[in-house]
Amino acid sequence: MQKENLQKLAKLAVRIGVNIQKDQNLVVNSPIECNAFARALAEEAYKAGARDVSINYSDEKFSKIRYTYADLDVFKEVPDWFVAKQNAVVEKGSAMISVYADDPDLLKDVDPEKIKTASAAIQSATEAYHMAMMNNECRWCVVSVPTVGWATKVFPGVEPETAVDMLWDSIFKATRADQDDPVAAWHQFNKSFEDKTRFLNNSQFVKFIYKNSLGTDIEVGMPENHIWAGGSEKAADGVEFFPNIPTEEVFSAPHKDKVNGTLVSSHPLVYNGQLIDNFSLTFKDGKVVSYQAETGEEALKNLVEASEGSNYLGEISFVPYHSPISNMDILFYNTLFDENASCHFALGAAYPTCVKDGSSMSVDELKKAGLNYSTTHVDFMVGTEDLSITGIQADGTEVPIFVNGDWAI
Amino acid sequence: MQKENLQKLAKLAVRIGVNIQKDQNLVVNSPIECNAFARALAEEAYKAGARDVSINYSDEKFSKIRYTYADLDVFKEVPDWFVAKQNAVVEKGSAMISVYADDPDLLKDVDPEKIKTASAAIQSATEAYHMAMMNNECRWCVVSVPTVGWATKVFPGVEPETAVDMLWDSIFKATRADQDDPVAAWHQFNKSFEDKTRFLNNSQFVKFIYKNSLGTDIEVGMPENHIWAGGSEKAADGVEFFPNIPTEEVFSAPHKDKVNGTLVSSHPLVYNGQLIDNFSLTFKDGKVVSYQAETGEEALKNLVEASEGSNYLGEISFVPYHSPISNMDILFYNTLFDENASCHFALGAAYPTCVKDGSSMSVDELKKAGLNYSTTHVDFMVGTEDLSITGIQADGTEVPIFVNGDWAI
Repeated sequence: MQKENLQKLAKLAVRIGVNIQKDQNLVVNSPIECNAFARALAEEAYKAGARDVSINYSDEKFSKIRYTYADLDVFKEVPDWFVAKQNAVVEKGSAMISVYADDPDLLKDVDPEKIKTASAAIQSATEAYHMAMMNNECRWCVVSVPTVGWATKVFPGVEPETAVDMLWDSIFKATRADQDDPVAAWHQFNKSFEDKTRFLNNSQFVKFIYKNSLGTDIEVGMPENHIWAGGSEKAADGVEFFPNIPTEEVFSAPHKDKVNGTLVSSHPLVYNGQLIDNFSLTFKDGKVVSYQAETGEEALKNLVEASEGSNYLGEISFVPYHSPISNMDILFYNTLFDENASCHFALGAAYPTCVKDGSSMSVDELKKAGLNYSTTHVDFMVGTEDLSITGIQADGTEVPIFVNGDWAI
Repeated sequence: MQKENLQKLAKLAVRIGVNIQKDQNLVVNSPIECNAFARALAEEAYKAGARDVSINYSDEKFSKIRYTYADLDVFKEVPDWFVAKQNAVVEKGSAMISVYADDPDLLKDVDPEKIKTASAAIQSATEAYHMAMMNNECRWCVVSVPTVGWATKVFPGVEPETAVDMLWDSIFKATRADQDDPVAAWHQFNKSFEDKTRFLNNSQFVKFIYKNSLGTDIEVGMPENHIWAGGSEKAADGVEFFPNIPTEEVFSAPHKDKVNGTLVSSHPLVYNGQLIDNFSLTFKDGKVVSYQAETGEEALKNLVEASEGSNYLGEISFVPYHSPISNMDILFYNTLFDENASCHFALGAAYPTCVKDGSSMSVDELKKAGLNYSTTHVDFMVGTEDLSITGIQADGTEVPIFVNGDWAI
């Protein structure tokens, strides 16, 4: 059963996720531990007409050895061939599926300065590639399958093998891979996003006011001609795809300079291998002016100071508190799942597609349109059972968008 | 115990194999299944002072999927970034350890034309890199650890787990990793090569005559100023290293145009995933003029026709029939072990270091000196219990080199 569902999930990532086209190439990024799934992706891609598939295997246990032993300076370097390899994905119009299955605890004892340095060096060296991906010049998809390290974090106190099985079941359920025809289910599911994005796009709210009992109290201004998206997106070539499997969010870009107030986290966040929990961020005219964290304040500092624009918001995202994933009541320690269980924001880059004609704008034009620019993009969760979100229209009309954590429209 | 020996074997590969130097980089090529060993290599390298380590993971089960589904044309392409990546190994003076653990049967049902095409395209695109490696511009080492696919081929009919354990034990024994201080044992062992290489280099035999009851009957001429090597070699930077762990061979380069007669195989050979067994090759003035094989004649044809120079000999190698590896009486289906259990030759490239001043010669100069040039280099075994090898000196004196399969000097 598990093997059958694994194949279904692979098919889903290939046909719904990146929607592979005849004679297109597919690049798979996968932890070595997820090799059975990576191979299933390859097989499904070829069956769907892909011209060629390549797999980039990573090994986080080796990464830990490297972070432990190598000097800080080493992490400042990014080989030219690596940059060329990433750019080739865009140049060839390949699709890319990334299997995301980090052990949330693995890097907790590693010097955060090394992780920060490595992350900044790679983001900076591969900026063109990242911007192209953010701009949907290629079709890409993030999907997760269990590893022992991750599963035992999500389900502590059970045997590793059982934890892995439990995580598989949760993933199959969250992704609908356990249904008879997951591809058909996703086509059906996609329709549920349409009403909401149409309403939000037509309303063109000038700002949203968030409040809850945790202490979130913030006004988030929106850029003119912003666009809400959810479910499938369209890539530059006009072909539909789903960047995330699962996905429950309806999202856009806030105006980078029009955010004032405080956001309080509702879920922990794993950033560069460090856990950040019970944290808050206070904004003035868009910029983070103060922050604190009960756990991982140093990591939060590293996030806020990671790069240009990492101290501004780049994404605003609506997810009902009673989303199917949220209803599982599992803390996944994995953004792909946790972000789909809660309203969230991202520090860092905005998606250019979130403003009219944004795909063809230069960085300066995007900034002028109010969109934040950064090489960082990190989601964090703020949704609670009592969250209210009120939309304010240009004429001052107040419209309840979320009441008690769920959609009010 | 196995874990302890694994660590010792890793240390051996790092300190004796590539003899890593302070602040040098190490590149590891490893099958994903050998990840524990790859990580041990990384850890030992950092402990030995390496600046940085990178691991290139490969997945032969994915390769099989690719060979099964992708069109022939796909295998003609080698990405520019891949060539740049290989060249960077040489440019940076990195050391390279390759973990060689192919499942000998995995690709047997794959279209050999695809494998041949892929192999030729990669060899041609990365020619500069291969020549640099053949010329010891970098220190490199090939070492093997078990995989299930390989172990169950070597030890058929036993449980996979037992087969893997048996193969580990054989490898530890063959590599001396089971000894208390393997590094010291290798330094001691290296001395045993010195008498033989000194004698052979001083003698400067003009040719060797091979005969045995299998049908081998051949004269192999040698170039002027040829050099015999065995045990450790010196890289371009003067630092000693062992390209193979284990190694039992004393080898040089034959004169490419002075080989006349027939060689009959004593061991099967796995080439590009295809088994070639009970085969013979007949040479005239150095060139293969006919060949036959009971098993895998098509694969043998592909080997002989693989590239320029793949139909000439590039290596002559002496290994006693009663070598420690040979005495194990195990058919490893892995050239690293089988070549060290038997006298052998290679079709294809000669090592430039096998002729005086060869390291600084151009390809044309090497050819003029009698050394074969090719992007192919494939060893095949001819040693038997009754093999005799007679060296002929310039004045016609005959000197027995091997009698009844073993050294006579």
